[in-house]
Amino acid sequence: MLAKIYVTLKKGVLDPQGKAVRHSLESLGYKEVRDIRLGKYMEVKFGDIERDKADTRIREMCEKLLTNPVIEDYQFEISDE
Amino acid sequence: MLAKIYVTLKKGVLDPQGKAVRHSLESLGYKEVRDIRLGKYMEVKFGDIERDKADTRIREMCEKLLTNPVIEDYQFEISDE
Repeated sequence: MLAKIYVTLKKGVLDPQGKAVRHSLESLGYKEVRDIRLGKYMEVKFGDIERDKADTRIREMCEKLLTNPVIEDYQFEISDE
Repeated sequence: MLAKIYVTLKKGVLDPQGKAVRHSLESLGYKEVRDIRLGKYMEVKFGDIERDKADTRIREMCEKLLTNPVIEDYQFEISDE
């Protein structure tokens, strides 16, 4: 079982790294880029575990370790890969 | 127009950061986690630009700046948001 987790900064939280990347893109000639925000992407492989349980466990892991719930949002999807 | 870009390490490339996270998860009691690999997630907002052109431009940006094509793979999807 595979979980794909997407972590993004909450709306309103400044993203200086994204700003730096936008400036770099602009200086390379990509002036059509309005905004860029950086986040994290994680792939978690599970052993034998039921889907419902995996769902709960992933949520817990995200709250406790994988994300910072104060400034970050997360979404995930679970597949049978 | 919004592009969502997912960057992952190529298969076979070691991921020490992911390994560290797996150990942390294990010590928190999440022993069902077999493997975890970390990547990057980016959201790029575009100004007025055709979809085909956006596609080409994103590919270029990924090759030139946003990813390291030697050790990383990327995928992206473009939406009208």
